[in-house]
Amino acid sequence: MIKAGVVGGTGYTGVELLRLLAQHPQVELVAITSRAEAGTRVADMYPNLRRRVDLCFSDPASARLDACDVVFFATPNGVAMQQAPALLDAGVRVIDLAADYRITDIAEWEKWYGMRHASPEWVARAVYGLPEVNRAAIAGARLVANPGCYPTAVQLGFAPLVESGVIDLAHLVADAKSGVSGAGRKAEVSSLFAEASDNFKAYGVPGHRHLPEIRQGLGRMAQQPVGLTFVPHLTPLIRGIHATLYARVDQEADFQALFEARYAGEPFVDVLPAGSHPETRSVRAANVCRIAVHRPQGGDTLVVLSVIDNLVKGAAGQAVQNMNIMFGFPETEGLCQLPVLP
Amino acid sequence: MIKAGVVGGTGYTGVELLRLLAQHPQVELVAITSRAEAGTRVADMYPNLRRRVDLCFSDPASARLDACDVVFFATPNGVAMQQAPALLDAGVRVIDLAADYRITDIAEWEKWYGMRHASPEWVARAVYGLPEVNRAAIAGARLVANPGCYPTAVQLGFAPLVESGVIDLAHLVADAKSGVSGAGRKAEVSSLFAEASDNFKAYGVPGHRHLPEIRQGLGRMAQQPVGLTFVPHLTPLIRGIHATLYARVDQEADFQALFEARYAGEPFVDVLPAGSHPETRSVRAANVCRIAVHRPQGGDTLVVLSVIDNLVKGAAGQAVQNMNIMFGFPETEGLCQLPVLP
Amino acid sequence: MIKAGVVGGTGYTGVELLRLLAQHPQVELVAITSRAEAGTRVADMYPNLRRRVDLCFSDPASARLDACDVVFFATPNGVAMQQAPALLDAGVRVIDLAADYRITDIAEWEKWYGMRHASPEWVARAVYGLPEVNRAAIAGARLVANPGCYPTAVQLGFAPLVESGVIDLAHLVADAKSGVSGAGRKAEVSSLFAEASDNFKAYGVPGHRHLPEIRQGLGRMAQQPVGLTFVPHLTPLIRGIHATLYARVDQEADFQALFEARYAGEPFVDVLPAGSHPETRSVRAANVCRIAVHRPQGGDTLVVLSVIDNLVKGAAGQAVQNMNIMFGFPETEGLCQLPVLP
Amino acid sequence: MIKAGVVGGTGYTGVELLRLLAQHPQVELVAITSRAEAGTRVADMYPNLRRRVDLCFSDPASARLDACDVVFFATPNGVAMQQAPALLDAGVRVIDLAADYRITDIAEWEKWYGMRHASPEWVARAVYGLPEVNRAAIAGARLVANPGCYPTAVQLGFAPLVESGVIDLAHLVADAKSGVSGAGRKAEVSSLFAEASDNFKAYGVPGHRHLPEIRQGLGRMAQQPVGLTFVPHLTPLIRGIHATLYARVDQEADFQALFEARYAGEPFVDVLPAGSHPETRSVRAANVCRIAVHRPQGGDTLVVLSVIDNLVKGAAGQAVQNMNIMFGFPETEGLCQLPVLP
Repeated sequence: MIKAGVVGGTGYTGVELLRLLAQHPQVELVAITSRAEAGTRVADMYPNLRRRVDLCFSDPASARLDACDVVFFATPNGVAMQQAPALLDAGVRVIDLAADYRITDIAEWEKWYGMRHASPEWVARAVYGLPEVNRAAIAGARLVANPGCYPTAVQLGFAPLVESGVIDLAHLVADAKSGVSGAGRKAEVSSLFAEASDNFKAYGVPGHRHLPEIRQGLGRMAQQPVGLTFVPHLTPLIRGIHATLYARVDQEADFQALFEARYAGEPFVDVLPAGSHPETRSVRAANVCRIAVHRPQGGDTLVVLSVIDNLVKGAAGQAVQNMNIMFGFPETEGLCQLPVLP
Repeated sequence: MIKAGVVGGTGYTGVELLRLLAQHPQVELVAITSRAEAGTRVADMYPNLRRRVDLCFSDPASARLDACDVVFFATPNGVAMQQAPALLDAGVRVIDLAADYRITDIAEWEKWYGMRHASPEWVARAVYGLPEVNRAAIAGARLVANPGCYPTAVQLGFAPLVESGVIDLAHLVADAKSGVSGAGRKAEVSSLFAEASDNFKAYGVPGHRHLPEIRQGLGRMAQQPVGLTFVPHLTPLIRGIHATLYARVDQEADFQALFEARYAGEPFVDVLPAGSHPETRSVRAANVCRIAVHRPQGGDTLVVLSVIDNLVKGAAGQAVQNMNIMFGFPETEGLCQLPVLP
Repeated sequence: MIKAGVVGGTGYTGVELLRLLAQHPQVELVAITSRAEAGTRVADMYPNLRRRVDLCFSDPASARLDACDVVFFATPNGVAMQQAPALLDAGVRVIDLAADYRITDIAEWEKWYGMRHASPEWVARAVYGLPEVNRAAIAGARLVANPGCYPTAVQLGFAPLVESGVIDLAHLVADAKSGVSGAGRKAEVSSLFAEASDNFKAYGVPGHRHLPEIRQGLGRMAQQPVGLTFVPHLTPLIRGIHATLYARVDQEADFQALFEARYAGEPFVDVLPAGSHPETRSVRAANVCRIAVHRPQGGDTLVVLSVIDNLVKGAAGQAVQNMNIMFGFPETEGLCQLPVLP
Repeated sequence: MIKAGVVGGTGYTGVELLRLLAQHPQVELVAITSRAEAGTRVADMYPNLRRRVDLCFSDPASARLDACDVVFFATPNGVAMQQAPALLDAGVRVIDLAADYRITDIAEWEKWYGMRHASPEWVARAVYGLPEVNRAAIAGARLVANPGCYPTAVQLGFAPLVESGVIDLAHLVADAKSGVSGAGRKAEVSSLFAEASDNFKAYGVPGHRHLPEIRQGLGRMAQQPVGLTFVPHLTPLIRGIHATLYARVDQEADFQALFEARYAGEPFVDVLPAGSHPETRSVRAANVCRIAVHRPQGGDTLVVLSVIDNLVKGAAGQAVQNMNIMFGFPETEGLCQLPVLP
């Protein structure tokens, strides 16, 4: 049993973390902080947790997070970089679900996130928490930068192709579609039901913060810079990301076999049989990425389809997976819930 | 006033045609046929038409369609090719909303549609009904092949680039998303609410019937064959198509100006200001295509966003637009309804 | 042609008013005010109005609303009561889509709305704008209090029974369900897509502001107080209200005939054949109320089903209907759009 | 470990049973039958079960169901009554998720279900599987008739009032709303996304098959016949039932305390604090019923709000709960998944 704390548990990644941690046999949940909601019972805000999570939100100032073994930051960007260093110095392991430690190039991060980094010295020591790519480093990490939702779906979909050098790396296209929970539990007009329901749109085409994160990840796999066009879209789902990836073949290969070999043994990546079309609902509420690879009409363009639940494999589930690796638990511990379909 | 008939008015394109024709000041709706529903009042099947459309479905055998000035086929593929020639010979103008006359290469058509063409002699005489590309020919047509929904959104989005020769024509990508009404009013498990709601998936990646239609259209614009990867997706909307188009720049140009010039004066194509992201709901229930063109990060890949209502500009509305052109009515007659938002 | 102004056109009833007024042949739209959005083009906020509505939002201070023939208040509660009197004194007719003038008993109004009434002298002079009940008074009104959405659906459903005295008036039950646009275009967590989608709940069971309005309306019809239990629910629709009404039979009658006779000749109330179940989509985007009356199992309880589009017959459409009556236009002028289905 | 079989596992209650049984520590799933899908891998039809359920559908004729300890019928009405007796005679315990054994009055059952009962001798021996009302009998049952979804929500909501005799039993009203999965995985036009989405309607107002089941259950609680008006509605949810119940107070009581006392100790019924409004999503994918009781405006009408997931507490979850009771497992075994929100 380890003691876990959550900073900023009022958003959707926060409640999803609570749902998973409350069912994890090795975790005692000891503190959930929220300045705005201090004193409120967690289950009053999230009635799905009634009779299962008895904690109240506590004020960050008074919560004894430094007595935890691990602290998750489910906060807006810019909070963990302020508060994590003190916890790290106290020996607590930290998993940041926000973007503070994802981008190694600090100037690049500051440009995209529009703020000055408060703990640049920790950026280089943070480990990017994509287990299927980075498992060994995660095991020894004190600070894990949990990947973004789009970056998880896109990197897992491209990895076998990029690592093996069989495609044109200069002109990758990632056309990604996200459910509305990806925008968080923020009161914004654009996320209202009457705006987002029965509607579909692209957004952030000129530039989205997940672009540099994906580019960095694919670049590391390729050991060279990659060219990427990334277009996110908002689709009327609560949960789910569907990434449709396009790449030009540079070198012939059995692409189906390539994917199957790359992910053999991975507990949370499922390569579908040739000809399949994964659905977002097939991973709903579960820590799974399902992938299919196509070569339409036998042409020179590959199409990879990659789906995740943005709140689970794209956020809270992946964070728990990272925690399991960091603490030597079986990687699937607490993450075996079957997807909910229909 | 012209007399209009509709063959097969029980599907979604059928009811949408009825909605538009019932509000058209120059049209008298005289017959709607359906073998299965003969005798049923149209308004009993479609209660939105109560007290406005008094017709009953009539049996195709007894309906005097040859007394119409124009007959619309809102039937499954393979019906118009059987029944249209007799009407055409009787001097009736025909607009086919299905695919029977869309593909000039009959062998190609037979391969994709899996049947033998019943009136190949009419294929060459049919005019492809995309007014923004083919207006003059439509004006003189006896038989119009109304374009598919995806082909409308994709061709209007690519046309300015393809016609002007500024992009690499060998590697076009069209990532398209459609609402569920595109699958028609057929009792199929995959279109059930509990299957299609809160879910997103690609389909038909190995090959979709709209691929050869789009390729033919773009090829004509380019006056050479084009290479196209086309991936359709199902998204939980009732109505709406969003096409996200990717093309490599071959020749520098002011792309925003190119689009604005190409569609200046078009009543039903709206080029949005630079930086815009069109939403499907901005065209809901109206005969409009809205388009935005982007060049993300100043790179060499253009991204065009094109939205239509699949039942209106992608089907029934475009059919009425074609009718207006064929009969010399103002092109916008009966098509001025404002989109419904929210 | 009359000149019309809209105060507060940024909400959903505002944009719906603009959609209807822009298509009304007798109306010139001259001003739309919004303090927060002054200077913004209306079509930039509501892209469905692009190329059809050229106005910008103007500052209320500078807009010459007193030069209008009619001004609509599509504002939050409490605005019209401040600003309408000056316009009324200038001879402008006013239609308030908010609640300021709906409740005759000022103390009751102040209790439910939690503010002091700023122009109580106008409350008695205001006419409650439910045309099917109050047509003659509306024709001569200077100030019309446009009914709430729930009150429209519930009153039209109960009216034939209450007016004819055939039911127990002490124990009426109205179980009403509304789409999310009824909550307005306000950035509130409870209206987010990820909260309201795939979810159903009651709200305001202890007391909702539409309760006294409905009770007042039914009481006038009955010429005695009525007892009413009113339970509103939030359902994942953009538009639509479905009221399910329960009443105990006190006196035998042919209830179907009673409803048909009561609404014979009403252009916007459609009594369905016996045994019908009206759907909200059958009135989507149109100014219609459809009603069915049932007597399940031949028992002593009647069930009335009443549907409207909350933004049209429940708000903006009814406001235009009232304007037509006030200015002697045909009552259906500008309101003949067919409902959009699917 | 017990051996379990499922007859007819291709519908939504079937896949939900599989999801729950696959995670149940005491159950070995040995056979799933489907005549139509014999030979198909279960996970090919339900991709959420990939890598977790390895079974294929087997032909009912060849499946050795008589070697099971328990067999669930997740079949259409009329199948279990044919096939269950042979299994029962072989000593297998049977839980029927359909309606075959729910109604004790066989003539009544035959009237509502429109067929002749094939094993009337088993009707009297079947135990109605609502654990909160019938726990002791279930423990000793060989054949359990698992309640319908509406009957579960409505009976649990009314039980404390009906059992204690504090309300007028002659005029109960149950206004119930169901998600579309309640209609099953059948290819029917009325359940299509484009029909059921963004739409709300009542159905079956003249009479619904769950009416006699609810009346029977409430009558047993009351030990006298009850009068009930039951109106079901279809709402655009995948999962969830919300029952809004109306009852006239006959005798004063502390109704909140009455509900809390009645359900104290119940693991799967959660009485919310006074003033609450339960949401269907608060029970999504979990075996819970949440209830709130209101007395609006202090009047003489009580309003009870009761929510369940129709596929879990309204079907498969309740079936597993019954199995736990029948086999002496802890009642919550395998049913502790937290609801999925958002």
